[in-house]
Amino acid sequence: MHIYPEPIAKLIDEFNKLPGIGPKSAQRLAFYLLNRKEEDVSQLAKAIVEAKSRIKYCSVCCNLTEKDPCDICNSVKRDDSILCVVEEPRDVVAIEKASEFRGRYHVLHGSISPIDGIGPEELKIKELLAHLQKVPRITEVLLATNPNIEGEATAMYIARLIKPLGIRVTRIAHGLPVGGDLEYADEVTLMRAIEGRREL
Amino acid sequence: MHIYPEPIAKLIDEFNKLPGIGPKSAQRLAFYLLNRKEEDVSQLAKAIVEAKSRIKYCSVCCNLTEKDPCDICNSVKRDDSILCVVEEPRDVVAIEKASEFRGRYHVLHGSISPIDGIGPEELKIKELLAHLQKVPRITEVLLATNPNIEGEATAMYIARLIKPLGIRVTRIAHGLPVGGDLEYADEVTLMRAIEGRREL
Repeated sequence: MHIYPEPIAKLIDEFNKLPGIGPKSAQRLAFYLLNRKEEDVSQLAKAIVEAKSRIKYCSVCCNLTEKDPCDICNSVKRDDSILCVVEEPRDVVAIEKASEFRGRYHVLHGSISPIDGIGPEELKIKELLAHLQKVPRITEVLLATNPNIEGEATAMYIARLIKPLGIRVTRIAHGLPVGGDLEYADEVTLMRAIEGRREL
Repeated sequence: MHIYPEPIAKLIDEFNKLPGIGPKSAQRLAFYLLNRKEEDVSQLAKAIVEAKSRIKYCSVCCNLTEKDPCDICNSVKRDDSILCVVEEPRDVVAIEKASEFRGRYHVLHGSISPIDGIGPEELKIKELLAHLQKVPRITEVLLATNPNIEGEATAMYIARLIKPLGIRVTRIAHGLPVGGDLEYADEVTLMRAIEGRREL
């Protein structure tokens, strides 16, 4: 039985490791690249290496950034009194696009999910509490984790930790379809959800 | 409005150029990589660059290969009298997996498709004719292009060129679902299709 030459097999294998890419798609991607110009291909490889080496966590909000602190943490135009807690960097972008929110962010990098072995220690919750203690100007924490089981559990968990600090804790409104993913919400729904936030 | 830091934006953009990967998948892939270990990420980048630099066309059959000539062209165990013509390198692998065919291959790298601006000159048809003239042992050419419009047109075109040379021209049988893609056929169907090949 004939298999692919080793460099092709290796490339297919690497693509296959990526989320949402099965063996057939991996094969397609590999052959697609082998048919591209050398230049295009090295551009992709370079983008991968550069992103990985230049992007770090912001020491203030834990978002991904090239500069530390990140542009949002550095901006003087943002409202310091409200902090929006999200699961992922892409959620920051989704909320920024809705352009309703003018406060600052904290990125947890995940949600509590016992089934995947992710407990509170795996998330940036310690960093959130430290930040709240360091910045007493924050009077409201808006929990904008995803409106699914893990996101709700994470919101509940964080709410319990923050309330004793005397900070107002709000939850993004369920204008979002329950069970969905924050990232896929349209901008109007997202705006409504921020307007209709409720006390926890 | 906040956009991604430039290295992330660039990476998303590069992923987005790949076939079958839209903006949302590109974003997911980028964030996935940013959360992986440095080592895993550089492995992917390396696989891309290596595959591109080490893989060339076989000077005999035009298949992708690391060595020239490729393993199949080099093998003494293959039947020299029958040459199987396919559109893509992945088709060679699909047929090899069915392990019915013991002849050799020629890879066209595409099919005639006027709508995409691909004429016979864009394919490795000149190379096929040169090969047939150089190797008089070949008594049968089995056309195994895809069973869709472009593949049929390509088979017809090549059949017309080869018949005057006095070589038997056969077409892979329509055991394959018409309108489909050779790559996705199961091995038994593919085996039947090779057994049932008919004169053109």
